[in-house]
Amino acid sequence: MVFSQPQQDEGEAPAGPSRAVAPSGLSVTLAADRPMPLDCGAAIGPFVMAYTTRGTLNAARSNAILICHALTGDQFVDGVHPITGKPGWWSLLVGPGRPIDTDRFFVICANVLGGCMGTTGPADIDPATGCAYGLDFPVITISDMVRAQALLLDHLGIDSLFAVLGGSMGAMQALQWAVDYPERVFCAVPIAGAARHSAQNIALHEVGRRAIMADPRWHDGRYAEHGDRPLDGLAVARMAAHITYLSEPALHRKFGRNLQDRQRLGFSFDADFQVESYLRHQGSAFVDRFDANAYLYITRAMDYFDLAATRDGDLPAVFRGADGAGTPVRFCLISFSGDWLFPTRESRAIVHALNMAAANVSFVEIDSDKGHDAFLLEEPAFFAVLAGFLDGQAEHRGIAGP
Amino acid sequence: MVFSQPQQDEGEAPAGPSRAVAPSGLSVTLAADRPMPLDCGAAIGPFVMAYTTRGTLNAARSNAILICHALTGDQFVDGVHPITGKPGWWSLLVGPGRPIDTDRFFVICANVLGGCMGTTGPADIDPATGCAYGLDFPVITISDMVRAQALLLDHLGIDSLFAVLGGSMGAMQALQWAVDYPERVFCAVPIAGAARHSAQNIALHEVGRRAIMADPRWHDGRYAEHGDRPLDGLAVARMAAHITYLSEPALHRKFGRNLQDRQRLGFSFDADFQVESYLRHQGSAFVDRFDANAYLYITRAMDYFDLAATRDGDLPAVFRGADGAGTPVRFCLISFSGDWLFPTRESRAIVHALNMAAANVSFVEIDSDKGHDAFLLEEPAFFAVLAGFLDGQAEHRGIAGP
Repeated sequence: MVFSQPQQDEGEAPAGPSRAVAPSGLSVTLAADRPMPLDCGAAIGPFVMAYTTRGTLNAARSNAILICHALTGDQFVDGVHPITGKPGWWSLLVGPGRPIDTDRFFVICANVLGGCMGTTGPADIDPATGCAYGLDFPVITISDMVRAQALLLDHLGIDSLFAVLGGSMGAMQALQWAVDYPERVFCAVPIAGAARHSAQNIALHEVGRRAIMADPRWHDGRYAEHGDRPLDGLAVARMAAHITYLSEPALHRKFGRNLQDRQRLGFSFDADFQVESYLRHQGSAFVDRFDANAYLYITRAMDYFDLAATRDGDLPAVFRGADGAGTPVRFCLISFSGDWLFPTRESRAIVHALNMAAANVSFVEIDSDKGHDAFLLEEPAFFAVLAGFLDGQAEHRGIAGP
Repeated sequence: MVFSQPQQDEGEAPAGPSRAVAPSGLSVTLAADRPMPLDCGAAIGPFVMAYTTRGTLNAARSNAILICHALTGDQFVDGVHPITGKPGWWSLLVGPGRPIDTDRFFVICANVLGGCMGTTGPADIDPATGCAYGLDFPVITISDMVRAQALLLDHLGIDSLFAVLGGSMGAMQALQWAVDYPERVFCAVPIAGAARHSAQNIALHEVGRRAIMADPRWHDGRYAEHGDRPLDGLAVARMAAHITYLSEPALHRKFGRNLQDRQRLGFSFDADFQVESYLRHQGSAFVDRFDANAYLYITRAMDYFDLAATRDGDLPAVFRGADGAGTPVRFCLISFSGDWLFPTRESRAIVHALNMAAANVSFVEIDSDKGHDAFLLEEPAFFAVLAGFLDGQAEHRGIAGP
């Protein structure tokens, strides 16, 4: 299977976010000369990758940081998001003088392969049919996402990243980068991640997928041809997932059993409680910016993630590499104590494997009761750890200070 | 609002479980003389309550145990379930020589008000319209369920229960019994429960309700009139809930990342992993025995549960009672260490309140990693605690041994 370049007719008004168009930022056509192989056995190319950059690449081309986004993230790490009008998802972390200091580093963030914010994904038009790919798009993996990002770096003329980092699915990509391209990564910071997706997390994703696929407006994935979108199913999927990103203490602190715009129980199925109203809002806001099929594909990529699968589960062997010499990549693992979706034990298992592979690794568990979402929130201890690690490594690599 | 008796035309073939008919066991019409008041301000009656009994009521009428079922449970605690053909949900615990010894105790279990296994609920026919109540059924509370059970005890000529017990929503009912009818309860055993439903648990229920209500086959709750049922929405709700009944370690032990009937990843959206296949089965099996509207009503009753709401959150005051004299009920609280839906801290909060009210209370946390469902599973330490407490209390009350 070979995919041609999706038509990027910017003059045509996009029919909502289900039409993959980079709303702003940069985009490039990759794999134009020869299709990029995928783990499923197919190949894809040419394909479009949408991305943003911040800061300036230095003369030595040694100060590039690749930020990898999570399931529902995108390339808009900072500034104002072009669709939601809200601050980018890591605005707290990325910018001049911030932990990921754009006065010192050249920051790249790309929408993942299979995404819906400009990079080629299932919502794009299949030139062979003139219709959106839908489920004809190949099932992609974290490794495929990383392979596509490597082509982007080739395009940008960056041989070696100073750092690759990300939270959640972003951590999976950071780990995969360190394993697949150890010579191209100086240091890696997987945050709130895991070496493989757990049975519980696969189960949680499956609920979201069933909610989408049960929506008749999903039309077996061909909703674009029907001028339709499975908004209800996608909203339910988002609501279910959103709970898993938080924590019981955080929900209790934020909402408790407070009632929404009323003094007493309504004895109805309206949103009596603030937490219900909040959750409904999360669901309905999400469908404005995300494509249902992309949600299927990206959750599937996470489910398939198992870093040690190619080594029969031997994670230390993965980090030792083919020659057994051990990885040159310097790692900093970060987890959050209140994260039950990607709990600390998952990061610790990676640290143990890295230790067994005699790798250079730091590990910090941040004390937080904000759940998995802590990696997106104001967590000064997390910011300090990240800034400290990057500064130290940058000095080590001889990257000039800001 | 007053409800008349639903038509229980046993000669009419029930159209699946959405038609509330007691498949076997007993049923009685209650509140025939005057409607029973409900917390919402309406009243209901006459209504049908379906129940089962085991064992024999002794001459002193002192050996009755009321078992209260959980969200998706019913009156079929032991024996073969008439719809599923599987053992009753507490077959391990109830029977001759078992912890709830039917050679010694007279065991009663009733389908809750608003349920779908024979007790009047939203699937029943509204005599005023000739159609199923649907959302015209009043929103009921745990206290309403308990009030209805008290009418059943009146009918059975039982002034005072030896014990009331149940897990999860059953624990809520056991607590409500002890608070609303302290003079009618000798001892209470709330298992894996809480004094109020948490924000997280309300949120989880809301996801299930949205999944049902988003299904177009729900028809605004009037699916019976359309000869339809929102099977997909109900299955998604069940899948989401089912994950919360388990634990990450239990899922990992049972399924890990094992593949279903295949040697390698399928690169598709079929059920690649065993855990996906298991979850889909849980969803599809559930819709065969449960009514979607009943699911809405019963989850709502749990969300509304807040034992101390009438006392401005002062839980000890609830147990002290109106006269401040303190409750005569003897309590045994049981929780499970691996239960994250109703964690031990919820039971501990009740124990603290009971201590402050100078009540007679025991508390045991059972070490288990099976999640919330542990109260339904083979847990010898749990069985031993329950049997020991009931035996001791029975001796105290002068109930003859088996």
